[in-house]
Amino acid sequence: MSTPFMFEKPVGMRDTLPSFYQTKNTVKQTMEKVIESWGYLPIQTPALEYYDTVGMASAILDRQLFKLLDQNGNTLVLRPDMTAPIARVAASSLKDQMFPLRLSYHSSLFRAQQREGGRPAEFEQVGVELVGDGTSSADGEVIALMVETLKESGLDDFQIAIGHIGYVNALLLDVVGSEERANVLRRYLYEKNYVGFKQHVKSLPLSSIDEKRLMDLLSLRGGREKLEDAKTLVSNGEASKALEDLEQLWEVLDGYGVSHHIKLDLNLVMHMSYYTGVVFEGYGSRLGVPLSSGGRYDELLQRFNRPAQATGFGIRLDLLVEALGQTEALPEQTCILFSKERRLEAIEKARQLRKEGKRVVLQDLQGVDNIDELSKAFADVQYYIGNKQGGKIDE
Amino acid sequence: MSTPFMFEKPVGMRDTLPSFYQTKNTVKQTMEKVIESWGYLPIQTPALEYYDTVGMASAILDRQLFKLLDQNGNTLVLRPDMTAPIARVAASSLKDQMFPLRLSYHSSLFRAQQREGGRPAEFEQVGVELVGDGTSSADGEVIALMVETLKESGLDDFQIAIGHIGYVNALLLDVVGSEERANVLRRYLYEKNYVGFKQHVKSLPLSSIDEKRLMDLLSLRGGREKLEDAKTLVSNGEASKALEDLEQLWEVLDGYGVSHHIKLDLNLVMHMSYYTGVVFEGYGSRLGVPLSSGGRYDELLQRFNRPAQATGFGIRLDLLVEALGQTEALPEQTCILFSKERRLEAIEKARQLRKEGKRVVLQDLQGVDNIDELSKAFADVQYYIGNKQGGKIDE
Repeated sequence: MSTPFMFEKPVGMRDTLPSFYQTKNTVKQTMEKVIESWGYLPIQTPALEYYDTVGMASAILDRQLFKLLDQNGNTLVLRPDMTAPIARVAASSLKDQMFPLRLSYHSSLFRAQQREGGRPAEFEQVGVELVGDGTSSADGEVIALMVETLKESGLDDFQIAIGHIGYVNALLLDVVGSEERANVLRRYLYEKNYVGFKQHVKSLPLSSIDEKRLMDLLSLRGGREKLEDAKTLVSNGEASKALEDLEQLWEVLDGYGVSHHIKLDLNLVMHMSYYTGVVFEGYGSRLGVPLSSGGRYDELLQRFNRPAQATGFGIRLDLLVEALGQTEALPEQTCILFSKERRLEAIEKARQLRKEGKRVVLQDLQGVDNIDELSKAFADVQYYIGNKQGGKIDE
Repeated sequence: MSTPFMFEKPVGMRDTLPSFYQTKNTVKQTMEKVIESWGYLPIQTPALEYYDTVGMASAILDRQLFKLLDQNGNTLVLRPDMTAPIARVAASSLKDQMFPLRLSYHSSLFRAQQREGGRPAEFEQVGVELVGDGTSSADGEVIALMVETLKESGLDDFQIAIGHIGYVNALLLDVVGSEERANVLRRYLYEKNYVGFKQHVKSLPLSSIDEKRLMDLLSLRGGREKLEDAKTLVSNGEASKALEDLEQLWEVLDGYGVSHHIKLDLNLVMHMSYYTGVVFEGYGSRLGVPLSSGGRYDELLQRFNRPAQATGFGIRLDLLVEALGQTEALPEQTCILFSKERRLEAIEKARQLRKEGKRVVLQDLQGVDNIDELSKAFADVQYYIGNKQGGKIDE
């Protein structure tokens, strides 16, 4: 522990400078416009929640939570996701509004990082929650909305991988027989550590048929036809229900005309433990990590005493902007430089130009060290200096 | 310490429900538009900063800071204001950009509350910082921009009280002779506890002339003419300089045509210790507390190794919306209810209406418990149900 240098920021914390802000804000506004046109209503929740309520429900690893104590000795957390806070609101302040509820948000989320390794500890997410609708139409709607949101933001080349927690659970449990052993395998899948998965499978005392069933799980990635292959690996009630969900979902996505963005990935396991059904992740071609994710969580709301089926997605704003690969740019600005004697003219001119939609800096000459240097930053500089009449002297 | 009930939020934390969000967001966007038209560029800084850097510079009372420890044992704070973080950025990431810098922000700020008493522990602020310009034109610009921002947001009836830290300091020090004794009086002024101020003045061993000078300070509130009265109370260098600043400022504000919103208040003392010159607060007629404030802070930047004169303001979004007294309202939405057989038609209809700018909920009949109840929430409901052709059946 040493005193931080005056310019330092905590691990994983970022400033957003004007050039990047503009790009990010344009993307964000486009996304919000699409989401509101689909009838989702925006809400905000506080940055701090109780650890015992939302903190526990969020299912983020404890060491990723920013924790602090309030004056009464209660542990608070900086919100690590928005699904749990929205579940809290849906079950309390909005308890008189009937389901289905369509809610959206744009929020900063917080995940503590152990070291400065490129991963942000605070990031913005834009997302929706569709609460109180258990149909495949609801699953399809949030995925189609995510596709449209990504497309409208300017992303062309992306894919959505769709899986189902119920299917993975059914297969793993059917083969290894206990939740505890299934958990070990699930963890490899969540980490996308397929080599580790295979090695672990080989170390297990399994029949060659069962070993093959687990190995074959890894090949259940591709088009709709993989649903047929999936049926041959496990056929109990839970698995069949999961595959039926996916069949219906695919039909809905066909209806929306978005299925060319979709691939099946029955290995998909999410880090959030509250997911219960269809889950999905969005990938842009330029990025190695998913820029969006979501899924069905039918058991979270009952933790807040208003049982309801629900689904939703979140898009990481920073990763989306990175995937878009846009160059950062500052908006064009006009500068009006004036001396005291001509202040009134200068103010009037600035007023006019601003009314026309221009961005105008009105600058007292006395406040500038180097006028030539300053002028370079502007698309247009107009001078109201001395006793001269009229506008620009550089023309 | 007891376990919080599942719906509870930490002291002073608030949810923003959709009806209020819409109102707030409209106000916020209007403000941002004005601010960017004046050439201010938006930036964002992280929610968490080091206590030893920004936390110390912010000058918020220690007990109002949310503090936590990071994994290296450093103390972090949730940002209590934006002026210190922006000073940090201006002196580091933006150190190659020449002054004056015009920066703006819309951020949540955090101030711990001892108990649930109506004061939020997290609130949004919209503001600007004009860094590197020591002229009265700069002071006048930020005040005129604050006036325009408030007006454009819809507020008609408001006043800006303007004071000067240099004048108060000069008078207090001239009369009581030590910073320590001046601090006691300054605290009464900061708390706007004028009864306490008077009682304390009477308790001091002062000549009747000096006692009257302090009492007369309290009457230095009103129009521009109060500047003349102020001169009679103290006439040393610092005081004269302060009154001259205010004379020049008033002229600038006349130039902007906003001086009818201005009154002089030479009692004004701010809680932020970094203010050095002109300070101001904005009041709406419906509120007892200031909804905006700001001032000149010419010594803060040097704490970050880039000495510069600076001024800025912040407007509390929650208080402004309250002052506007607007009724909350949800946007109008259309609902398209469909059954599976007619999904494609329904999707197509929703797409059309959304393209026309409508907000459209597309709802599978199977996801709804009570259709009559649901219908009430919408301005327009269209049905695509069964095998019937065509659109609405309720017409």
